[in-house]
Amino acid sequence: MNEWLWSYSGYSADEEGQREALCTVGNGYVATRGALAESAADGIHYPGTYVAGVFNRLTTRIADRDVENESIVNAPNWLPVLFRVLGGEWFSMDHASVEDHHLELDLKRALLTRRSRLSDDAGRTLSVTERRFISLADQHLLASETTFVPENFSGAVEVMSVLDGTVQNTGVPRYGALDHDHLAHVDSRIVEPDLMLLEVKTNDSGIHIAQAARTKLASNGEELHPVAEPIVEDRYAAQRYELELETGTALTVEKTVALFTSLDHGIYSPREEAVHNARRATGFDELLEHHATSWSHAWNRSGMTLTGDVGHTARVLNLHIFHLLTTVSKHTTELDVGVPARGLHGEAYRGHIFWDELFIFPFLTMRVPELTRALLRYRARRLDRAREAAVDAGHEGAMYPWQSGSDGREETQTLHLNPESGHWLPDASQRQRHINAAVVVNIWRYWQATTDLEFMRFWGAEMVLEIARFWASIATYDHSLDRYEIKGVMGPDEFHEGYPDREEPGLDNNAYTNVMAVWCLCRAFDVLEVLPGKRREELIEKLAISRDELDRWGEITHKMRLCFHDDGILSQFEGYGDLRELDWDAYRERYGDIGRLDRILEAEGDSPKHYKLAKQADTVMLFYVLSSEELAELWDRLGYERDPDFIRRNIEYYESRTSHGSTLSIMVHAWLHSRLDRRRSWDLFRSALESDINDVQGGTTREGIHLGAMAGTVDLIQRCYGGIDTREDMLQINPSLPVGLHELAFSISYRGQLVSLEISHERVRVRLADDHGRGAPVTLNVAGRSEELEPGGSLEMPID
Amino acid sequence: MNEWLWSYSGYSADEEGQREALCTVGNGYVATRGALAESAADGIHYPGTYVAGVFNRLTTRIADRDVENESIVNAPNWLPVLFRVLGGEWFSMDHASVEDHHLELDLKRALLTRRSRLSDDAGRTLSVTERRFISLADQHLLASETTFVPENFSGAVEVMSVLDGTVQNTGVPRYGALDHDHLAHVDSRIVEPDLMLLEVKTNDSGIHIAQAARTKLASNGEELHPVAEPIVEDRYAAQRYELELETGTALTVEKTVALFTSLDHGIYSPREEAVHNARRATGFDELLEHHATSWSHAWNRSGMTLTGDVGHTARVLNLHIFHLLTTVSKHTTELDVGVPARGLHGEAYRGHIFWDELFIFPFLTMRVPELTRALLRYRARRLDRAREAAVDAGHEGAMYPWQSGSDGREETQTLHLNPESGHWLPDASQRQRHINAAVVVNIWRYWQATTDLEFMRFWGAEMVLEIARFWASIATYDHSLDRYEIKGVMGPDEFHEGYPDREEPGLDNNAYTNVMAVWCLCRAFDVLEVLPGKRREELIEKLAISRDELDRWGEITHKMRLCFHDDGILSQFEGYGDLRELDWDAYRERYGDIGRLDRILEAEGDSPKHYKLAKQADTVMLFYVLSSEELAELWDRLGYERDPDFIRRNIEYYESRTSHGSTLSIMVHAWLHSRLDRRRSWDLFRSALESDINDVQGGTTREGIHLGAMAGTVDLIQRCYGGIDTREDMLQINPSLPVGLHELAFSISYRGQLVSLEISHERVRVRLADDHGRGAPVTLNVAGRSEELEPGGSLEMPID
Repeated sequence: MNEWLWSYSGYSADEEGQREALCTVGNGYVATRGALAESAADGIHYPGTYVAGVFNRLTTRIADRDVENESIVNAPNWLPVLFRVLGGEWFSMDHASVEDHHLELDLKRALLTRRSRLSDDAGRTLSVTERRFISLADQHLLASETTFVPENFSGAVEVMSVLDGTVQNTGVPRYGALDHDHLAHVDSRIVEPDLMLLEVKTNDSGIHIAQAARTKLASNGEELHPVAEPIVEDRYAAQRYELELETGTALTVEKTVALFTSLDHGIYSPREEAVHNARRATGFDELLEHHATSWSHAWNRSGMTLTGDVGHTARVLNLHIFHLLTTVSKHTTELDVGVPARGLHGEAYRGHIFWDELFIFPFLTMRVPELTRALLRYRARRLDRAREAAVDAGHEGAMYPWQSGSDGREETQTLHLNPESGHWLPDASQRQRHINAAVVVNIWRYWQATTDLEFMRFWGAEMVLEIARFWASIATYDHSLDRYEIKGVMGPDEFHEGYPDREEPGLDNNAYTNVMAVWCLCRAFDVLEVLPGKRREELIEKLAISRDELDRWGEITHKMRLCFHDDGILSQFEGYGDLRELDWDAYRERYGDIGRLDRILEAEGDSPKHYKLAKQADTVMLFYVLSSEELAELWDRLGYERDPDFIRRNIEYYESRTSHGSTLSIMVHAWLHSRLDRRRSWDLFRSALESDINDVQGGTTREGIHLGAMAGTVDLIQRCYGGIDTREDMLQINPSLPVGLHELAFSISYRGQLVSLEISHERVRVRLADDHGRGAPVTLNVAGRSEELEPGGSLEMPID
Repeated sequence: MNEWLWSYSGYSADEEGQREALCTVGNGYVATRGALAESAADGIHYPGTYVAGVFNRLTTRIADRDVENESIVNAPNWLPVLFRVLGGEWFSMDHASVEDHHLELDLKRALLTRRSRLSDDAGRTLSVTERRFISLADQHLLASETTFVPENFSGAVEVMSVLDGTVQNTGVPRYGALDHDHLAHVDSRIVEPDLMLLEVKTNDSGIHIAQAARTKLASNGEELHPVAEPIVEDRYAAQRYELELETGTALTVEKTVALFTSLDHGIYSPREEAVHNARRATGFDELLEHHATSWSHAWNRSGMTLTGDVGHTARVLNLHIFHLLTTVSKHTTELDVGVPARGLHGEAYRGHIFWDELFIFPFLTMRVPELTRALLRYRARRLDRAREAAVDAGHEGAMYPWQSGSDGREETQTLHLNPESGHWLPDASQRQRHINAAVVVNIWRYWQATTDLEFMRFWGAEMVLEIARFWASIATYDHSLDRYEIKGVMGPDEFHEGYPDREEPGLDNNAYTNVMAVWCLCRAFDVLEVLPGKRREELIEKLAISRDELDRWGEITHKMRLCFHDDGILSQFEGYGDLRELDWDAYRERYGDIGRLDRILEAEGDSPKHYKLAKQADTVMLFYVLSSEELAELWDRLGYERDPDFIRRNIEYYESRTSHGSTLSIMVHAWLHSRLDRRRSWDLFRSALESDINDVQGGTTREGIHLGAMAGTVDLIQRCYGGIDTREDMLQINPSLPVGLHELAFSISYRGQLVSLEISHERVRVRLADDHGRGAPVTLNVAGRSEELEPGGSLEMPID
């Protein structure tokens, strides 16, 4: 099995959307999809190029309410290179019969190749081979090379190269009611005989997007210079060529596109820059060579080597890493972009940022910490908005929103459509305040892995302290219990938005939220500890944090309330124990896929509120995010009892009541079982790998890949099975490889050192790979044994 | 003497421009000036707010040539708060007589206060007190508070609060022939009774600038709510109020303005963000408090304490540090901005970036290295343009431009006006390739002070290697001499653009350029050394650097040609020794100020080309940039002789032939003399301090302060007199305090440690001030004696 190749043979209208999603070639600046022709036959139409960080907002009237919706924007479609017999119909999936179709994604070079044979009604057969990529060497360049061979006809043909700005957001049928036309015309123009320009802007936020395309024709290696007929319309530019073609003669169209937006740095104007760069770009082959070199370097840093009977696993993991690297790269550090839940691969969730960083950053931080730094600065830039949100909600500090986009305000929908019932329902999911814990986890992990003091001084500490302040302010004190409580929030489980008998949405004392709030407050004290004295004083002065306030934070870390039921089960929220049990078998039998039990129950006139069920890991997220040592420390601090079997009992309890309606959930459970039941963990892990490649949610992959789940599986290999952790100023290595995985090798970045790791069932080899032997020594903790390793040094330790 | 207060009493039309320039209150995002009224009486009109990083380009016909000019853009003037008796003339410097005028800049809080008493023709006297600042706490907020007291009249008056987008670039009379209208109307609107919006965009580059102003009126502490008459025109918005005022009653107008551009991060649109922020901003006093706190923290990091009879010196140095901190701050790290030669304080040099970083970065790097990092990334973003410039000039690698702006292309004027003769003359100053050495010096110094490996891996190393490649490619080999030469360039001395008898501009073998090229090539090898092995291999692959190429670099470092004359004088360039001597005394007598001898000679029909004279330090820049150890090493490497008196002789030779037509020149000479003649050095230093405060160039300060010279004087205190250096992986401390300066205390950031320093004539005290004792020990070298200092430790060492 080739672990670097992803390919599909045969044309399948049903699967085309999913294939396109998986075979995205991008570079973290723009991700692109597109059919050979203007539209694909299957109705799943991915015309454009998602432009990182460019959002537009429109007001739509839904269910008698005006709803503002911010959406990620499709850039003009740069792909179309069309072919037809003079005056005939363009060859496309729509208008021709597909004789052969082969799609191939080369992960190593991020090169997409499409080979088709298409026949028209007159029996003319055309073979088409397209190769394309978005350059990782130069994030503004996109290139395609399309070769047409008329197999059984000759004569006058037409070829057209198009930049199409009439694209709309139509990738998610469920959003059909929302406004989906985001672009306005600015300019379309033929600049030079082989160069055209299209400039559009988002129609509300006013961000300009300019594309310039250079088109070159050649036949059997010889350049052709037919005169192009210009076609210039609003939001559309094309160059049409007429030429004579012999049977069996190859016609190659090379298209090089430069894409700039008004948000780009280091430019004069997107228009001028696009033209300049398209004009200066080298040819397809040379661009591809640079692109491939950049990818080989990216794989050097981010790849991992798995040994064992794990060919399929390695291939899927490579695909997952590939998608991570196309979403986040050196180039995105120049942009004000976060990590959208669906990457830059689809319109689902409208490009919004949720909490997926929690699952994505560990991999990035250990490979290229600079990427995490840039993404944390994205959060830091939105601290003021988070402060405003806290104030507006009657709290203090900073309250990051559950979903957000360009300006960091709360963008969570307040209504959502249940496709099962056709109802528009109120949506309270923005009460997921636990995202604030995710931000602190991300900052603290970054700090532990890098000790990047400049980041902490400038940006990190302030976010942690303001979030701590928010937790302290949302917590209310109950005198009778002598405990603090957090009321009216939601945990990660989106099936429970509130109580059946309470008008106001939200739940009280969600275990995950309450424990993580305490953990955040503890980290706030740690952050004050690690700051140099002067900066600590300054921050305390700037934020006006009083001694009393710090005392209260400390008190909360000892007195946060947790609820329990069934003799030691940590209640997902207060009152969970009183809910009804669902007849899971009956529902599985009746509906098959019950991932979205919420929709099923609502369509039945019932509600998930009444049942002990969860869409995804909620309480047990604690065992995923926190180490057992951290958990023990928190329990002691809070003064709660827990029997030795506490973790296992809770995992089993909740697992049997979870529908895994989120792709993150199975991955988290695979993690949870890694030390309890290796076989079950591996099975769950293998099942988590299928999320996108088999579109297990039945149609969501074509709306955009699930980046959190993808990153989570990769991270599971390194941090869970590999057992790498960066807690407590040590590089902890405590592996627990699954049976089928014999050896695991990868390199990580830890506190300025490149650490090369080889992990097997019997031993761990560690090498500080800096060949100059510079920097500070690294304290290792391998399966409980501490070792100091000098720069340039290496060691091998057996494990049981 | 108050070292924190800068004030002027009495109105002087002649000096107003200079005063305004020095009393800029800014925060590194926008710098602002402006009169009380719409225009000032002296014709020096600073209406707007320079928006960091926003450039616009227009084509002007000059001397029968179309010349493209990129200029920094004046944002709409946010300042005007006007007052008049109903139906009368607005009180202003233009239309009233100035009874009293007092301008006061509080450096500690960056607060400007203007107190005036103005009388009109009818004898009505109005007292006006204005306080204003641009917030360092929130870079988007600008606030003013203006109090009007009618001293001897009462009745109906009008007050008007204005946002004026009709501003033009008219700050530099010499640029009068250039297009100076850069803004186009987008929107002007009254949003709410007390809130107005003005949005404009640059008319070619299309960058949007939005300002929203909230105006609040109060009388003797009581809020007034008169209805505002809206005045909404193209590029202009105002709110006009009519009210009755008693004699002696104070009317206070509080104006809070939010300013956003389309280049800002973390926003939806500048318009929406401006309105949102103006609406949510607190009142003047609270905003001022936060602003003042931010400034006190900035001074914590950047201030220095001088002891001795140095009150004036300390006050000027504080002013210089103040201007640095208003140009570069945490906020600019979010923007794609470099350091313009005139800061953000004026239109001179059209906002362009030159080589001033060389003089500015040492201070920033030692105080807040994150600032230098961001500014170096500004250069990194423009590496591709520098590569293109090298290719277009027939070279390899990357050739940074002498003057640049938004997109990093060469922006140096190709014609300049001699105001003495009225002639437009060809300008070859872009041949100052030595700026590429400055970029390498800046990167290497940053590396030495921080060992920021992430920066080096991602951005720094590539710039150094590409510049090295450029130097190797511009150098040509002369077989007969067995030496490499660099021909057709200019050194820092702009009086010499070429040879009298050669058509083509440029000089051969400029000593500063040739030596610095060798130094850069040596650093390229060092950079390859410090990179981790994998990254080194990747970069070499990416840049396709061959073994042969590296061999050639090495060879050039041994065989670069230098020219000498007069028995050991390093020739500024080949052939310098053959030039004529100027009769300096005669010219001084005839013209007084001969700083711009070039203009004088050209007006006489002569040319500086014929003479041994320099505008500024050129050859002797070597002794400023390089340590004597580095110089000795380079000389040995190149195989040239030099007698023990070499440095002194060359300094004296060139000093007597320098007109100091650049503000940098005297500062550099002060440095050069610090170890030769302390008294002369101190005199020169004190004279360098006068550059802007006394506008020694007779009018250039009003066109913008000289940031390089300002930073240079501050750096001279720390690195030259304080003797701090970060070469060779050591913190070197080798002080040489001037007689009048008894003690010097400041803190620097060095490799993650906060190092507190107290330096006197007798001893040095060093403390690693991190109260946690974390991080790696620091190797000190105090006056030649090495010491290892542990984190948290301190030591005192005597010096002779």
